[in-house]
Amino acid sequence: MNISPVIEAFLKKALHEDIGKGDITTLAVVPKEHLSLASLTARESFVLAGLPFTEKIFKLVDKRLRFIKSKSDGERIKKGALIVQVKGRTRSLLTAERTALNLLQRMSGIATLTDRYIKCLKGLPVKITDTRKTTPGLRFFEKYSVRVGGGYNHRFGLFDAILIKDNHIIAAGDIKKAVKLARGNTSNFHKIEVETKNITEIKEALDTGVDTIMLDNMSVKQIRRAVEIIRNYNPDVIIEASGNMKLDNIRSVAEAGVDMISVGALTHSAGGVDISMNIRNL
Amino acid sequence: MNISPVIEAFLKKALHEDIGKGDITTLAVVPKEHLSLASLTARESFVLAGLPFTEKIFKLVDKRLRFIKSKSDGERIKKGALIVQVKGRTRSLLTAERTALNLLQRMSGIATLTDRYIKCLKGLPVKITDTRKTTPGLRFFEKYSVRVGGGYNHRFGLFDAILIKDNHIIAAGDIKKAVKLARGNTSNFHKIEVETKNITEIKEALDTGVDTIMLDNMSVKQIRRAVEIIRNYNPDVIIEASGNMKLDNIRSVAEAGVDMISVGALTHSAGGVDISMNIRNL
Amino acid sequence: MNISPVIEAFLKKALHEDIGKGDITTLAVVPKEHLSLASLTARESFVLAGLPFTEKIFKLVDKRLRFIKSKSDGERIKKGALIVQVKGRTRSLLTAERTALNLLQRMSGIATLTDRYIKCLKGLPVKITDTRKTTPGLRFFEKYSVRVGGGYNHRFGLFDAILIKDNHIIAAGDIKKAVKLARGNTSNFHKIEVETKNITEIKEALDTGVDTIMLDNMSVKQIRRAVEIIRNYNPDVIIEASGNMKLDNIRSVAEAGVDMISVGALTHSAGGVDISMNIRNL
Amino acid sequence: MNISPVIEAFLKKALHEDIGKGDITTLAVVPKEHLSLASLTARESFVLAGLPFTEKIFKLVDKRLRFIKSKSDGERIKKGALIVQVKGRTRSLLTAERTALNLLQRMSGIATLTDRYIKCLKGLPVKITDTRKTTPGLRFFEKYSVRVGGGYNHRFGLFDAILIKDNHIIAAGDIKKAVKLARGNTSNFHKIEVETKNITEIKEALDTGVDTIMLDNMSVKQIRRAVEIIRNYNPDVIIEASGNMKLDNIRSVAEAGVDMISVGALTHSAGGVDISMNIRNL
Amino acid sequence: MNISPVIEAFLKKALHEDIGKGDITTLAVVPKEHLSLASLTARESFVLAGLPFTEKIFKLVDKRLRFIKSKSDGERIKKGALIVQVKGRTRSLLTAERTALNLLQRMSGIATLTDRYIKCLKGLPVKITDTRKTTPGLRFFEKYSVRVGGGYNHRFGLFDAILIKDNHIIAAGDIKKAVKLARGNTSNFHKIEVETKNITEIKEALDTGVDTIMLDNMSVKQIRRAVEIIRNYNPDVIIEASGNMKLDNIRSVAEAGVDMISVGALTHSAGGVDISMNIRNL
Amino acid sequence: MNISPVIEAFLKKALHEDIGKGDITTLAVVPKEHLSLASLTARESFVLAGLPFTEKIFKLVDKRLRFIKSKSDGERIKKGALIVQVKGRTRSLLTAERTALNLLQRMSGIATLTDRYIKCLKGLPVKITDTRKTTPGLRFFEKYSVRVGGGYNHRFGLFDAILIKDNHIIAAGDIKKAVKLARGNTSNFHKIEVETKNITEIKEALDTGVDTIMLDNMSVKQIRRAVEIIRNYNPDVIIEASGNMKLDNIRSVAEAGVDMISVGALTHSAGGVDISMNIRNL
Repeated sequence: MNISPVIEAFLKKALHEDIGKGDITTLAVVPKEHLSLASLTARESFVLAGLPFTEKIFKLVDKRLRFIKSKSDGERIKKGALIVQVKGRTRSLLTAERTALNLLQRMSGIATLTDRYIKCLKGLPVKITDTRKTTPGLRFFEKYSVRVGGGYNHRFGLFDAILIKDNHIIAAGDIKKAVKLARGNTSNFHKIEVETKNITEIKEALDTGVDTIMLDNMSVKQIRRAVEIIRNYNPDVIIEASGNMKLDNIRSVAEAGVDMISVGALTHSAGGVDISMNIRNL
Repeated sequence: MNISPVIEAFLKKALHEDIGKGDITTLAVVPKEHLSLASLTARESFVLAGLPFTEKIFKLVDKRLRFIKSKSDGERIKKGALIVQVKGRTRSLLTAERTALNLLQRMSGIATLTDRYIKCLKGLPVKITDTRKTTPGLRFFEKYSVRVGGGYNHRFGLFDAILIKDNHIIAAGDIKKAVKLARGNTSNFHKIEVETKNITEIKEALDTGVDTIMLDNMSVKQIRRAVEIIRNYNPDVIIEASGNMKLDNIRSVAEAGVDMISVGALTHSAGGVDISMNIRNL
Repeated sequence: MNISPVIEAFLKKALHEDIGKGDITTLAVVPKEHLSLASLTARESFVLAGLPFTEKIFKLVDKRLRFIKSKSDGERIKKGALIVQVKGRTRSLLTAERTALNLLQRMSGIATLTDRYIKCLKGLPVKITDTRKTTPGLRFFEKYSVRVGGGYNHRFGLFDAILIKDNHIIAAGDIKKAVKLARGNTSNFHKIEVETKNITEIKEALDTGVDTIMLDNMSVKQIRRAVEIIRNYNPDVIIEASGNMKLDNIRSVAEAGVDMISVGALTHSAGGVDISMNIRNL
Repeated sequence: MNISPVIEAFLKKALHEDIGKGDITTLAVVPKEHLSLASLTARESFVLAGLPFTEKIFKLVDKRLRFIKSKSDGERIKKGALIVQVKGRTRSLLTAERTALNLLQRMSGIATLTDRYIKCLKGLPVKITDTRKTTPGLRFFEKYSVRVGGGYNHRFGLFDAILIKDNHIIAAGDIKKAVKLARGNTSNFHKIEVETKNITEIKEALDTGVDTIMLDNMSVKQIRRAVEIIRNYNPDVIIEASGNMKLDNIRSVAEAGVDMISVGALTHSAGGVDISMNIRNL
Repeated sequence: MNISPVIEAFLKKALHEDIGKGDITTLAVVPKEHLSLASLTARESFVLAGLPFTEKIFKLVDKRLRFIKSKSDGERIKKGALIVQVKGRTRSLLTAERTALNLLQRMSGIATLTDRYIKCLKGLPVKITDTRKTTPGLRFFEKYSVRVGGGYNHRFGLFDAILIKDNHIIAAGDIKKAVKLARGNTSNFHKIEVETKNITEIKEALDTGVDTIMLDNMSVKQIRRAVEIIRNYNPDVIIEASGNMKLDNIRSVAEAGVDMISVGALTHSAGGVDISMNIRNL
Repeated sequence: MNISPVIEAFLKKALHEDIGKGDITTLAVVPKEHLSLASLTARESFVLAGLPFTEKIFKLVDKRLRFIKSKSDGERIKKGALIVQVKGRTRSLLTAERTALNLLQRMSGIATLTDRYIKCLKGLPVKITDTRKTTPGLRFFEKYSVRVGGGYNHRFGLFDAILIKDNHIIAAGDIKKAVKLARGNTSNFHKIEVETKNITEIKEALDTGVDTIMLDNMSVKQIRRAVEIIRNYNPDVIIEASGNMKLDNIRSVAEAGVDMISVGALTHSAGGVDISMNIRNL
């Protein structure tokens, strides 16, 4: 896997945040040439995500560290399983440890939560997507983790898709005006999506010929009704449900017939999984 | 509050992550000179943290935005309460919204969780601290949020305190050797802390004259016994408990008489609180 | 106009490229407190683009310079017309001059060329777009200039649209496989566009249900035939013509009925317009 | 060829500009381990410039790509000729393609235009130089291309030579004062050059003992007269002609006996040459 | 030795400062493929510090240069001794020379001065430390050099230790208040040090239970008295002497019984040692 | 004085080096809104250099600090004199103090040493210049300080002048070949300078028609002889003396009739002057 220069720069900053002027404990306590074998082990069950970045973090600290992987991104890891071993200078291993684990634990947490959502939807033709509710600075990693967990990415940012939300509609006047402006002021290689809160807005949006309609914060019952109206109007319009999607209600939303469900919780509420690193002298 | 250039650079990168080449929806749909008043409102109860950074994010997008604060960092916010209003060009408001909210929600989530831990310890002379289990790149913001929530910061990184952990002890040979190396290889302005797993290690650490002993992953019973031994040996030694500190066990740990309890969950498991932004045309 | 931190950083680098350790002539020859009024004048006729960035460049050198604009971006400037006056310390004016003019001349050159293409298409319902054939590092400025000149932006980069080109088709096997992979591996908020070279490929693409078909390097006759086939198949499919679009053939391509024409020359072959700066002592 | 860290940083930014969060088409459509052989071919005749940077761009995307060069910088390439082949992962090839070509096409365009100017001057003892009228941010690449095309570099920026232009003279009062200030305020390791518009200014400049005189925007007739005056006064003074130097008038300027001719068009008006990249499955 | 990304970035900037757009003499005069063997030789006696960074500087210019070390950091080098040889392209050697030597000379100068201080204290149980009086931007290198010379590092910056200085005391009101605030507002893993100017302040500081007392700018006689008072009060308190420590008075200060002596001169007054580089054609 | 973005970036990094995650003492001990007046006072006599940068450092920490200057760069400051007062939040004052002083002390040290050299040469028509023997990263500040002290700047780096040194001559074969290459491979707006060690080399250099001859490490007697030979050959050739120029021998070198003397010691051996900052509560 190629790590882009931008990602590499982020990882360097993350390492610097922890190491700063130097790992004073390790420099004082561990002899320069001491060698160890470090083992990263799962302390709970989860879906692994972020291993290539973990490897890069270790290598940024010391390019001579050797990485022996037992698992890959996307695998379901059992509690107690060995994930990877890293071999080389003990100083380098201990200095990289926390930054590497912090990233791997967070990314795996997101993949694991995504996987749990996906499982709820078994057999249904619906795509789970993330949102832009990500940790500032970590969007790339978090959206990657969603994909590893089986989800899809919604737009990456404000720059790669047109999504007309309630505040845009307020500023533009109404849905019709907003869509007209969007169409007139951009070339036509972007789909146009509109966020709607009720049937009136849905109908207004349909009349403008939008490509995608987002049903925002509706009840399952409302969603069912909305799907029926949209499908009758134009079966090609894509339907996205959004807002407060939980593990216990997502299946019924999916069964209502939407095409996509976007889930902010995937990135803003996933906790880190528990992974430990233990070393053995070589 | 002065925002340091390093923090400002982080906020710029976070904005760029979301905005990239431009907010294509807003640029197409919202007229250039359109003005609005945006209101940030709490959709649940929480402790606020991060407002000065939120303001900076809005100002980085458009320095002419005006910020009218109703609340400050550290305040307990009730569901439905108005937090702050921002006034100015609608385009700027909508473009800054998500990045600003993502940070504020995450930071407030950490302050809120910290506050819940603190409440469990009412009346006890113990300090709750964070750990280095933070999101890569966000340690400054997360440790700030812990302070806002009433907690204390443990060391910021590998560079500002000496903490001899199990892996250091393995590499050095034993606790005695590790402490001796730490003392010999650094000037004596740092305290020396050692992580211990059992009474044998505690005694070994005490004999080396360390300043602080961390009791790692011990039961409340073990902690009680450890405190007794340490206090008898030298009442000046600081005792820190660490490992799997939950809201339901932390009070009994504190009652066992330790000086500090470090809680990784403050930063690695706090979800974001729910805050909305709505605009009104001006 | 808000200048984003990323753009500001680019402008700073551009200034540094010219100024380096200092403008040794000006520092030696012009007294520190000497004041002037600088006038930027058109030495040929053109469409102006880039004035806000020009202003920013002057302000980055000296924030106390005053900018008195006679013209705005998008205006058609006559030979000899005054564009803007800048007032303040002579040293700052002379040091900023070349970088400011270099950008303004290049951006105006692109807007002017775009404007000439647009004029050829008067009355026809077609959008002219740019391509990714931009100067490395300047895409933002060049795409902005195309918009100022009346054109539209095609995708900004590889990240904000799906465009399956000949090389992708070779790697994937055939158009059908490529489109299937694109659809399966992304969420459905992006349109899918396929580049085609002949009628066979167009039919293959239509069968996969793509949103947009690019007609690459076809003759006007071929384009006419292609448009007929596509419109008959599905009138909603968007048709883009591309490849060697010149001022003398673009009108006939547009008359063939395509929706968009992308023109690489807008950015890779526009020369700079001629603008001078003269100062007067104050 | 060593690529300096500053140049490498520029190339990384240029790649990021195009790739951003990822090449979504290629990631979706091309299998991870798919291998190809890419061929870069000339679609017109030109002088090649920029190949080492092209190679670096590909390697920055994927350091395992192999580069098999058929041509080198400075060679005259015939239409249809193979320039270089790149072998490796198809994803990496397609992701790097546009950025690599954009740079190579622009740089070769400059070398080719320079070469055309040089050819006009066959047999004459005159040096063609560039100016500071370069694309912001790309000066290093553009000045390199001029050298590859057989030209010479004038000063790189404001920092490496003293050139007293009309605006400096206005601010200083007159040529005499300006030259005196330049000489007094700098050590004497820089030559001093003065821009002149007519014979009066030339004489004034000669009297101050400057090293180099620039004849700005003069007719061939004026230039001939100026050369005569200067050579009579002091044969060691270097004479540079500048301003509106075109392919059809440059030979007569050179024949007038100047030492150097600086040509802004080399960098501000060279279009990109046409180079294609085609892949073949391996 | 691992060079951190932050240090590498500094070295790149330092090289760029000297090389800028290119080493114009070397590029013009030395053939591209010319090879040489460069020898770095001591022109005076000193303690070597900075060799790994010197190597990195050469490698940043040209990673194919080979480095054959005769000496290592910390060694006492005799006048005339060969330190290291570097083999490879002459252009790379000459371009890297000055930056590499400037750093090595400065760092060795600091190590050498530190070594001279250490020698004055032979047999005494006292640690010599540096201060924060370092060259802006070079603290890492300068504190490293102090360690190489046998000294210890005091705090790295404002972030890794609590040191209450006279200005803090003025702002807080008195020593008691200042220490109370320091203790209350931080967790207890930092030692607390207070700067004192006289016996009254020392007693005040002792009463607050601080860990370390700095004796600032006291005479040897005052220091002797202070040590006596402090040791009687609490033998565990660490005593640091600071202020105008010279080679001719430091032994008597040490003999007064302090634990640490901090010496600003180590970094702010060490001159560079003299090292030359000569090449031989290969 | 305009501070360029590059210089500002350096100052930010320097501040960050000292402050890192925060000034923990000041944050704990000094109340947020506490105001003070800080006075910077000379503790010895010196020539002031760097005040505008000192101001910028304070302002980067807190843009609301007010700066009341009593002195300016270039002034001779008497021991005990007040240099500048800074007014505002105590926290900001204390956090900026060390970085500001470190720079001001170093820069003033260089200006002061330069001033001492200049005084030795009273009445003689010779220019003292610096060399490239500067602290890595600080060349801009150090060369500025030399100018403030009355000296001149030699070339800034490898990029802004042609100086053929002994190692270049070895690589090129001999002086004649080296100069020919330099002249052929560059345009003729740079002077050409050659380093010589003896009369033979001087004669060789004169025959090539170089602009400047450097006499490297010669005795005063040799320099006298060299000057005579050069002046006889061509009075326009500039003569620079270099190598081991000390305060006690520089006047006799100057009296030998050279035009410039370059002194490495100005930057590599100047110690910092002593300046203190004391605050008073407001």
